[in-house]
Parts: sequence; C-alpha cells; structure tokens
Amino acid sequence: MKALFLNCTLKKSPETSNTQAFIAQAEKIFKELDVATETVRVADYNIAFGNSSDEGENDEWPTILEKIYNCEILIVATPVWRGDRSAIAKMIAERMDGIMEEGNDENGRFPTYNKVAGAMVDGNEDGAKRAIAAILFDLNEQGFSIPVNAFAYYVGKAGPGKSYIEAEGDKHEFTNKTLLYMVHNMVALAKSLEKEPIKTNLKKLDKKAEEMSS
Amino acid sequence: MKALFLNCTLKKSPETSNTQAFIAQAEKIFKELDVATETVRVADYNIAFGNSSDEGENDEWPTILEKIYNCEILIVATPVWRGDRSAIAKMIAERMDGIMEEGNDENGRFPTYNKVAGAMVDGNEDGAKRAIAAILFDLNEQGFSIPVNAFAYYVGKAGPGKSYIEAEGDKHEFTNKTLLYMVHNMVALAKSLEKEPIKTNLKKLDKKAEEMSS
Amino acid sequence: MKALFLNCTLKKSPETSNTQAFIAQAEKIFKELDVATETVRVADYNIAFGNSSDEGENDEWPTILEKIYNCEILIVATPVWRGDRSAIAKMIAERMDGIMEEGNDENGRFPTYNKVAGAMVDGNEDGAKRAIAAILFDLNEQGFSIPVNAFAYYVGKAGPGKSYIEAEGDKHEFTNKTLLYMVHNMVALAKSLEKEPIKTNLKKLDKKAEEMSS
Amino acid sequence: MKALFLNCTLKKSPETSNTQAFIAQAEKIFKELDVATETVRVADYNIAFGNSSDEGENDEWPTILEKIYNCEILIVATPVWRGDRSAIAKMIAERMDGIMEEGNDENGRFPTYNKVAGAMVDGNEDGAKRAIAAILFDLNEQGFSIPVNAFAYYVGKAGPGKSYIEAEGDKHEFTNKTLLYMVHNMVALAKSLEKEPIKTNLKKLDKKAEEMSS
Repeated sequence: MKALFLNCTLKKSPETSNTQAFIAQAEKIFKELDVATETVRVADYNIAFGNSSDEGENDEWPTILEKIYNCEILIVATPVWRGDRSAIAKMIAERMDGIMEEGNDENGRFPTYNKVAGAMVDGNEDGAKRAIAAILFDLNEQGFSIPVNAFAYYVGKAGPGKSYIEAEGDKHEFTNKTLLYMVHNMVALAKSLEKEPIKTNLKKLDKKAEEMSS
Repeated sequence: MKALFLNCTLKKSPETSNTQAFIAQAEKIFKELDVATETVRVADYNIAFGNSSDEGENDEWPTILEKIYNCEILIVATPVWRGDRSAIAKMIAERMDGIMEEGNDENGRFPTYNKVAGAMVDGNEDGAKRAIAAILFDLNEQGFSIPVNAFAYYVGKAGPGKSYIEAEGDKHEFTNKTLLYMVHNMVALAKSLEKEPIKTNLKKLDKKAEEMSS
Repeated sequence: MKALFLNCTLKKSPETSNTQAFIAQAEKIFKELDVATETVRVADYNIAFGNSSDEGENDEWPTILEKIYNCEILIVATPVWRGDRSAIAKMIAERMDGIMEEGNDENGRFPTYNKVAGAMVDGNEDGAKRAIAAILFDLNEQGFSIPVNAFAYYVGKAGPGKSYIEAEGDKHEFTNKTLLYMVHNMVALAKSLEKEPIKTNLKKLDKKAEEMSS
Repeated sequence: MKALFLNCTLKKSPETSNTQAFIAQAEKIFKELDVATETVRVADYNIAFGNSSDEGENDEWPTILEKIYNCEILIVATPVWRGDRSAIAKMIAERMDGIMEEGNDENGRFPTYNKVAGAMVDGNEDGAKRAIAAILFDLNEQGFSIPVNAFAYYVGKAGPGKSYIEAEGDKHEFTNKTLLYMVHNMVALAKSLEKEPIKTNLKKLDKKAEEMSS
C-alpha cells in the first residue's frame, strides 16, 4: 500500500517549504502503519495549464499522473494563499479533470475509483477550511472516496505571523490530532475498499440516465 | 439499510419545494436498490440556532438527530440561494457540530462513523459546486465518509429562470447521471463499510497527539 | 451620517457575544469620526427564512430593513461557524435579496445605491476570509459599494481556543489595524458618494440590455 | 480614463478564448462612455508563481503590474474551472499581494488606492459567483474600491455544454444587463473618486493600531 503526497508549495527546491515539513510529519505516521510514502513537489516539475491529461511538448504532468495511478492513497497538501489553496493546487486540480476522460472500457470507472484521498493545509493564518473543502470536492468528483476526517491543518492567528516550521506546528496538539485521524482513517478505508471494492458500472448508469431523460 | 434526506428548502409544507421533487427522483433510484428512504423537511421543524445537540425547550433538532443516528446513508439536499447552500442547510450544519461531542466512551468514534454522506443541490442558477463542497466538508468532519461521486445537482443558465420542476430537471441527462452515480456509490460504500468498518480508536490517537506535542 | 451594524451571533441577548465586543471596538472608531452608530442583534428578532422584504405575520425583518434604508454605512458582523459566516448571517443575506425588487420607479436604482458596506468577522479559528468574501459579494449585488479595505477580522490558531473577548482581540494589533482601515475608508467613501453620487440609470440599461440581446 | 482587463483564460494566443469574446462585449460599452481599454492575456506572458511584485529573471509580471498602476479601472476576467476562477486568475491574485508592500512613504496608501475593480466570469456551467466573490475580496484587500454591481457573468446549465461564444452569450439578456451595470458603475465610481478621492493616512492608522494594542 502506498500513499502519495502532492506538495503544492509555490516554491521550488531547494527553498524551505513549510508544507514539506508538515508532510514529513504525516509520513512518519504512515510509516508506523507500514504504508510506503512518496512526495512530489509540483513546483519542481514543468506543468502546463490546461484540463487534459497531456498538454503536449515539455508537459511533465503525465509523470505525476502515473504516480497517482500507482498509489492507493492520495493527499493534496497546500499552503494557504489569499485564504484558499495555492495557484499550484488549483492548477493540478484542473489537470486532474483529464482523469474523468479515462474511464474503463467495460464499466466506465475512472482509474482512481477505489482509491482514497485527503487534504493537508498549512499557513500562517486563515483559509484552511475553504482550501480543504475545495480540494476534497474536486478529488471526490475525480474518482476518489473520502474517508471520515480526511484532512489536517495548521494555521496561526489572524495577520502576518509564523508558519508551520517556525511556529512549531509539529508540536501543535490539535494539528497532530487531525493528522493522526486522517492517516489512520485513510489507511482503514483503503483496506476496506481493497477487500470490498465499489463496483458501480458507470457505463450502464450512463445508458440508464439517457433512458430516464428522454 | 436506510437513506435519510434532509430537505433544506426555505419553504414550509405544503408549499411546493423543487428540492423535494429532486429528492423524489433520488428516492426512486434507492428503492430500485432495495434501500428504504425517509425525508425530513427541516423548515417544518422548530430548530434553534446553535452548535449543540440540544438547545433546550421547544428545540426539535433532537428528533432529527435521532433519525440521522438511525440511518446508514445521509443526504443533505439544498436549494441554491446567493450562490451557496440555504441558510437552513447552514443552520443544520452548525447543529451537527454537536455530534463531535458524542464520541464513544471506549474508542471515541462519533455515532456517525461508518455512515456515508452526500449532497444534492438544485437551483435556477449558479452555486451548486460551492454548496456541495461546503456540505461534504462539514459532513466529513462530523463523522461521515464520502463515497466517490457523492453528489448530484441541477442548475440552469445565469440569471433568473426556471427551477428543477418547471425546467424538467428530472429529464436533464447530466443531472440524472450524477444522481445515479451518487446513489449507487453511496449504497456500495455503505455495504463495504458494513462488512469492513473503519475501527480507528480516536481515544488512543488523542493520547498519542498529546504525547507528540509535548 | 450613520453606521449600522448587524450582529449575526447565534446567541440571543443577554448571552455574551464576542461579535458584540468586536463591534464595540469599531463603534469607538466611528465615534471619533463623528459618525453615529447603531447595532441590531439579529438573533433577538423574529426573522422568517425567505427571499422577500416581508414574509408576513410576525416577521420582524421589515423593522431591520428600515434601519438599513436609514443608514449610509452598513456592516455585517458575524462569528465564524464551520469555517464560514453564521447561519443567521446567511439568513439575512437571503432576506436582503428583497432589496433588488425595490428599484426606484424612475431610474431603477435600489434604495441601497450610494450606501457603502463592509464586513467584520471573529472566531476562535479559521474561516474569516471565506466569510468576508461571501458577505461583500452579497452586499455588492444588493446595491452597496465596497470601499477599499472594507473588512476587519480576528481569528485564533487552528483548533478549539479562545474567542475575541478572552483572547483580548481588542489588543491584537493586526485586527485593530484592519478595523481602523475599514472604518476610515467607509466614512471616506460614504462622503465621496454624498458629494459625487453614482447616478446610473438602471431602467435605461435594462432597456439597452434587451435591445442588445435580440 | 483607462480600463484594463486581465484575461485569465488557460489558453495561449492564438487559441480561441471565450473569455476574450466576453471582454470584447464589455469593451464596446466602455468605448461608448469614452473610456479607453486594454486587455492583457495573462497566459501569453511568462509569470512566475509567488507573492512578490518581482520574482526575478524572466518574470514578466512587472510588465503587467505597471499596466495595473496606469489604469483607473481594473477588471479580472476568468473562465470557470472546477466551479471557481482559473489557476491563472489565482496565480495573479497571489502576485498582486506584492502591491500591499508598496505603500506610499508619506501616507502608506498602496498605489491602487482610488482605483476601482470588478470581475467578469464565463463558463459552460456553475461556478461564477464563487469566482466573483474570491476575486472581489482579493482586489478589495489589494487596494481597490468595488463599485455597486461590479461584476458580470455567463454560465450555462449544469453539465458539459456550450461556452460563451457558441452559446451566444452576447445575446443573453441577463448577462448583458450585468455587463452594462458593471461598466456604468465602474466609470461612475472612478469619476467620483477622481473628484473626491479617499485620503486615509494608513501610516497614521498603523501607529494608532500599535497604541491601541499595547
């Protein structure tokens, strides 16, 4: 079982990323549950704006998409900017629309069906819940199930202030609680779906929708 | 297995509710899958504003809350007003915060753990996705897992215009498709969780969070 | 010149309202600028759910609406619940849609044209900016102009924690800065509009829209 | 007097942009009011992710920022993707945070004070109001005043469908009405502020905030 993190910081390596430090804290918990982890720092890739799975020459999104298809658990992790997820988090949400074009020939299920997803958000202040709601909605439409309590966040008081690392977010009990709930529930639901997968035949339902609507 | 709908129209019975007509369409699909349904029209109850499970004298929320505890599948259905869910949908989201105070003595899991939830939104225009994102986030924090594609919506073109009934939303293929996906996936995940429930011990994790944070 | 605050706390008088304390801080600043203030605690009124200016028997919204029509400056002040404005704040936003039905016979301008509006949000944690964005958008559609930096907020760190009064929000420099900017800019724009009002003839533009669209 | 549009389509020139067609409709109205217009198609520029006014080598944001500083009226125009503004619209909102670092030495006012701003949103379906609310909030914090009814939008019915050009959005009466209101009110408020500018001394208020908070 594998958990993939998409770090949506605006900063390229090797700049320090608070979101990366927050992810590191989550990775420790996954490891205790014997789940392998991998993190992609999206800013280090050349990703084109768009809505398909491949936007052509030099577009490195297909590399990341393949990683998404090879994990059971996906976590989108983003800093807060302007009270919402980062522009990079929005950009990859748009690219993930391509997944919905890749339904299985037989049953129409997207390659992400029976995977689980969650969200992590960190920032110096206000905006985590709006970011989480947007991320979870997008991933839910794009084929993922969302386990109960599938998010974790750290934000400080209103106004400019310390971010996750400097604020010692790794010692903030509420944030650690959300992380523990998130990781344990993600692994639990991923296991439930491994044993008892959702087998909805979307192709059949598409036909039925057509009939109901004529 | 039972599915409960909370109709968050602003209008009391017996006024015509477009949201009620939309729910009726969903109920048909649940019945085909042998799932019983019940609908609560929240506006017909006397619900106090607040954040607890019981706001005292004359508050009828406890009646609704008991219905929530007795279903396996919960759908919050709301009309769009001001580009978002209705004030009644927001009011019950606030009341549902009380659920998080009622964790099991032994393992801390809220009474809603291992239930699944979804959202239905209808309106004459724009606002469905914002409403869905808010509803799903709230239900996810309040103990529900969200099956893949757990929402359905109908909205018309920008500006004043026909609502679900008059617009014949029940013949709008896209909306019916979202309904069919939603209902089938909700039933599928509810069954998966019946056989393979999430057994996270939140009390243990609370203790662990405390240790990690000292 | 008069500034009206609508306090959207969920709690009725005489319960302590953090939002009321936050408003008191804003009132002091208005008074320094010789602007009279009045605060309506919406929870103390019997307001019906709906979208018109008068929802009939026992509905006390008309009383509040008249106060809105008699001020030059309107501030919607709300606590954060579920990462967004309160259900009461949403309820009054829906009621204010009635304003758009009351355009002047000659020029179609709503009674709120040339008034200015702003938002104040307080909470123990995350959600201020989402609430502000929703409030300002609604008021802008309902006839108000929004002066630069027309909002103020206080929220604490992620998780349960102290609210405005206990956290001494009245000593939080960032929050006070936003309050000062808000009040001074609201008064400035209200004065600009008194001298140089917006005189757009909406009736003419309605006719023009019709012509452009045929 | 000059109005600047930032077209936040994801597509580079010369691909057809529905947002560009929508902007063209707005430009006609500005011209009738003798206001010059210019449109920047952001996707054609090399803009770095970040939060400052200059992100170094090859970053073309300073070119756009200069245009912003040289207009009286700014309109951010975006397509809807995932029920919200585009990633490019979010990216430039983040870059515009740099404006808040450039307060006047004497009075602290950002270079955008006394400019007015608005939002235009087009899409095949749902998401306009969420996008507008986010855009107007950001611009309001970044120094712009928002005239009454300062937005216009076109979206179609729920589900995949025609966008602005193919749907003949230029003949959709509601959309044209919002455009006319927006343009006329923007010009009116820009003129009011030219004659009666907001003169708030932010530096003084910063000092006062410090005193109030000690």
